[in-house]
Amino acid sequence: MSITNLKVKIREVKDFPKKGISFKDITPLLADPILSSFVVESFKNNLKDEKIDAIVGVESRGFLFGMMLANEINVPFIPIRKAGKLPADVISEQYDLEYGKAVVEIHKDSIQKGWNVVVHDDLLATGGTAKAAANLVERLGGKVHSFLFVIELSFLDGRKNIGSEKNNIISLLKY
Amino acid sequence: MSITNLKVKIREVKDFPKKGISFKDITPLLADPILSSFVVESFKNNLKDEKIDAIVGVESRGFLFGMMLANEINVPFIPIRKAGKLPADVISEQYDLEYGKAVVEIHKDSIQKGWNVVVHDDLLATGGTAKAAANLVERLGGKVHSFLFVIELSFLDGRKNIGSEKNNIISLLKY
Repeated sequence: MSITNLKVKIREVKDFPKKGISFKDITPLLADPILSSFVVESFKNNLKDEKIDAIVGVESRGFLFGMMLANEINVPFIPIRKAGKLPADVISEQYDLEYGKAVVEIHKDSIQKGWNVVVHDDLLATGGTAKAAANLVERLGGKVHSFLFVIELSFLDGRKNIGSEKNNIISLLKY
Repeated sequence: MSITNLKVKIREVKDFPKKGISFKDITPLLADPILSSFVVESFKNNLKDEKIDAIVGVESRGFLFGMMLANEINVPFIPIRKAGKLPADVISEQYDLEYGKAVVEIHKDSIQKGWNVVVHDDLLATGGTAKAAANLVERLGGKVHSFLFVIELSFLDGRKNIGSEKNNIISLLKY
């Protein structure tokens, strides 16, 4: 099992969501339980033996491997969701999209001060969502240990936006 | 570990998303990896030794335990998503909400004819989403083996809407 096997399971769909964009579709990977477990194992290896207190996953594709990873290393899974979805008290972060703005939220009581937290999403594009997720974690008193992505679109410079000087940003596949 | 332990981890949030509704919040369950694994084990026990070809999970909370279950029993995980999210060729189902309509989609190439498929979501309410998900599976030539839910709001009669005469509908917690 290797990263080469993994790349075969990412389907490129031309002109989605709009003309000129080659969308990276992870559904063939989700349909392969052996490679899906390999993704989780690879993430786990990147965390080595460090003490992690929680995995934060971003709605909705960040729920897939994020929940598996949290269970694999036996820590809480904490969802970050789009505005209006989490029912209890939340804090919010707004970030820029190509056109307009988006808002993500986290439950106020989800993270304890001083926790060492991993932020996960399936894809690192411009880094706007990941940066907003990290801000939410830090505003609750958590420390962002690292960012774990399945796919990174390197040409969009997401690392720079997140702030690569202070954080450990790991992606399994780069385009 | 028992169902009683599980119920403690479901937080009831009053008046969400609107006045008079007591929302069942699963985030305390997601924060408990031992009970989350218990959910997956309970689902697995309900499938017994029958041959299952895939788990279908409904966006977005159906991704959490659905993906874990698929990996646990070593079969493909197939996402059903809201309209416009899946990039390749899809089929769609529209269903009624309290006010208005919703549309869910599945990739056309995700299910092979004759496959024995389990439909999963976290919550069974009126059954509209689950029924639409089952229709998608059947239109692709799959057979719905069973429906697995963490929570069932029995007073909403979702079972009747799904059509309990022909399907095996399992929920771990009933309200």
